[in-house]
Amino acid sequence: MPTASVPDHFSAVPLAKAYRLLNHGPVVLVSSDHGGVQNVMAAAWSMPLDFDPPKVTVVIDKATLTRQLVEASGSFVLNVPSQALAEQTLAVGSDSGKAMPDKLARHGVSLFSAEPSTAPLVHGCVAWLECRLLPEPHNQNQYDLFIGEVVAAWADSRVFSDGRWHFDGAPEALRTLHYVAGGQFYATGASVLIEK
Amino acid sequence: MPTASVPDHFSAVPLAKAYRLLNHGPVVLVSSDHGGVQNVMAAAWSMPLDFDPPKVTVVIDKATLTRQLVEASGSFVLNVPSQALAEQTLAVGSDSGKAMPDKLARHGVSLFSAEPSTAPLVHGCVAWLECRLLPEPHNQNQYDLFIGEVVAAWADSRVFSDGRWHFDGAPEALRTLHYVAGGQFYATGASVLIEK
Repeated sequence: MPTASVPDHFSAVPLAKAYRLLNHGPVVLVSSDHGGVQNVMAAAWSMPLDFDPPKVTVVIDKATLTRQLVEASGSFVLNVPSQALAEQTLAVGSDSGKAMPDKLARHGVSLFSAEPSTAPLVHGCVAWLECRLLPEPHNQNQYDLFIGEVVAAWADSRVFSDGRWHFDGAPEALRTLHYVAGGQFYATGASVLIEK
Repeated sequence: MPTASVPDHFSAVPLAKAYRLLNHGPVVLVSSDHGGVQNVMAAAWSMPLDFDPPKVTVVIDKATLTRQLVEASGSFVLNVPSQALAEQTLAVGSDSGKAMPDKLARHGVSLFSAEPSTAPLVHGCVAWLECRLLPEPHNQNQYDLFIGEVVAAWADSRVFSDGRWHFDGAPEALRTLHYVAGGQFYATGASVLIEK
């Protein structure tokens, strides 16, 4: 797997604001690495679980290669794809890294890492949350539910800065996605601001 | 609390399709009732947990009245508000039912129930998932994380029918909402369909 360079506009997000990267419920890509074996799968079922230190949950099915890598490595990354990655998101959510060992190359998924971390991050996403698994065997076995503590977070500064998403002034292709089923997503739409 | 009548366009959703009501990550209103005490709070942190039987998760803080009602009654409803309810969603997420016993009346929240269920459903929403709490004391105490099995589901047939959301042909005010922070939501945006 060739490692791509760090993308332009890649900016650190303070941990106390990391929950906002997921708060609006976007589909995510779960990337993981164990012993040099890397995989990326799509997950519609993830959410923030706490503010500070930030925690997240994500559902990872027992049949997946990602499940093996996450349980073995104790870490994973939630990457938030932009609309430009909709086709790749569907593809890596449909094909298994077990049955298709060259899945990432075949679907044109390129990974990079950001010093000092070595976590595999997905190129073309607009937010990244590096997580350390908080082992909860009952949840993992009973519900396929994984809990992680966010240890680092980044975003594309064209759409997330000063702790906020700013989709309205950015290209449509940078909007995040919300998955329904059967290849159908909704893009994140218009901002609705209610004054308290 | 006066009980409103069942809204127009209120239609049952088959349980196997209930996850699709939450799959795109909308903000929800959590409604509950114990011994005639009713409350509604907003929750950005909820997600589907399983397909069939459908299960959901939602984070309910220890400080909330909803927490008391859900733990005492063993049930809750996840209501998916439309854009028309953005102001009410923010209001019931900001004010506590403990400190403001007339919170629902003050914010114009009207509840109804659908035979044969007696669960309190929020008028003006576009989807409703009635849930039976699956007690998991460790998750509840450690993470404020609640798991429920969906026992009934309904949607507004103007925007959800045949197991799919159909926002594009419906009034903007019926789109669902995704919460960020500080009174800012994003509406569910344009449909993005990828052919497999």
